[in-house]
Amino acid sequence: MPREVRERQMLDAAVGAFARHGYQAASMDDIAEAAGVSKPLVYLYLKSKEELFTACVRREVGALIAAVREGTRERDIPADEQLWNGLRAFFAHTAARPDGVTVLYRARTQGEPFAREVAAMRVEVVSIVTLLLGQAAKDAGCDGELAEREVSGLAHALVGAAESLAEWSNARTDDAPSAKETAATLMNFCWAGLENLMKGHRWMPAPRVH
Amino acid sequence: MPREVRERQMLDAAVGAFARHGYQAASMDDIAEAAGVSKPLVYLYLKSKEELFTACVRREVGALIAAVREGTRERDIPADEQLWNGLRAFFAHTAARPDGVTVLYRARTQGEPFAREVAAMRVEVVSIVTLLLGQAAKDAGCDGELAEREVSGLAHALVGAAESLAEWSNARTDDAPSAKETAATLMNFCWAGLENLMKGHRWMPAPRVH
Repeated sequence: MPREVRERQMLDAAVGAFARHGYQAASMDDIAEAAGVSKPLVYLYLKSKEELFTACVRREVGALIAAVREGTRERDIPADEQLWNGLRAFFAHTAARPDGVTVLYRARTQGEPFAREVAAMRVEVVSIVTLLLGQAAKDAGCDGELAEREVSGLAHALVGAAESLAEWSNARTDDAPSAKETAATLMNFCWAGLENLMKGHRWMPAPRVH
Repeated sequence: MPREVRERQMLDAAVGAFARHGYQAASMDDIAEAAGVSKPLVYLYLKSKEELFTACVRREVGALIAAVREGTRERDIPADEQLWNGLRAFFAHTAARPDGVTVLYRARTQGEPFAREVAAMRVEVVSIVTLLLGQAAKDAGCDGELAEREVSGLAHALVGAAESLAEWSNARTDDAPSAKETAATLMNFCWAGLENLMKGHRWMPAPRVH
């Protein structure tokens, strides 16, 4: 069997084990058994538990970024549809790879050197969303300076919301919403607000006499 | 000097040191010096570096929850104003205690037993927001079953967005937005969407011919 196939099997087994048991509790014995290989072969290919976990995290980071990039490839359509495409791609990916999402969550909360891999991924996703919102703001005629700062804040808000929703949705064991439902929840949550904002209509507290 | 005053000084010094240097790199020597006490006294009061960090995390968790509860105390006002009050309270708190926010962030990414303290806090904040949105949905006449599930998703989206914005805002070294600006950004981001959703108006992708 070619090396890359063996390695993929090991990573599949490892992602499953790390997702179920966490970094500390997952055992190299179980991972080798689930991959159908000997433990020495796992060590030969992936060196150590730390390198194996890092390889899992990098693979899942790469897969998630690729899914979001693919989902937002079409740029010649209205901004809300671009966002809708991106959100559907994101939630379809996180629903299809729940163990991968759990591994990313575990890596983020596991301390260094793992947390920084997830932090770097987050920076990349935020930059995709920032570009998208920035283009939408420009199309809507928002002016430079202010828009740029606010767009950056909005992109962080959106990514934080999506992350939190993906974890929530994957944690539901019964009656979990579909990826499309979750994407629609977030779109409903934010689009009307974003659209108004692009047009310069802001939310204001009602004047009240206390 | 009474014990609680001494302890507060130690925790203040420790929160500063853990925020600046991280859990691993912060030294008990520096913390004792910054608190103006001897290192044996720090160990006498707080036992170990792990217990000292846990005490810092618990204090900052308690302070943040108290700020949000206080901000959302007034329940006899429109839902958007309740949310606005809660967001302002949250961002005012995170802006006033940047080191506390950093300690919570570090705890979340530091592995167990610290990450679970922050996870528990998050559950509590989500439940405050869920109650608030649930009340708003009920007032707007949304029907039970569907609303309950979606409200839970929306609460997670909102908390994730707020968390992400607080980190973004605190990471800006120059020209950082005020707490009120950040709260307004998030309110603008979501309120129009939420309001439409409560009224049963949903975002829909425009029908297109490909």
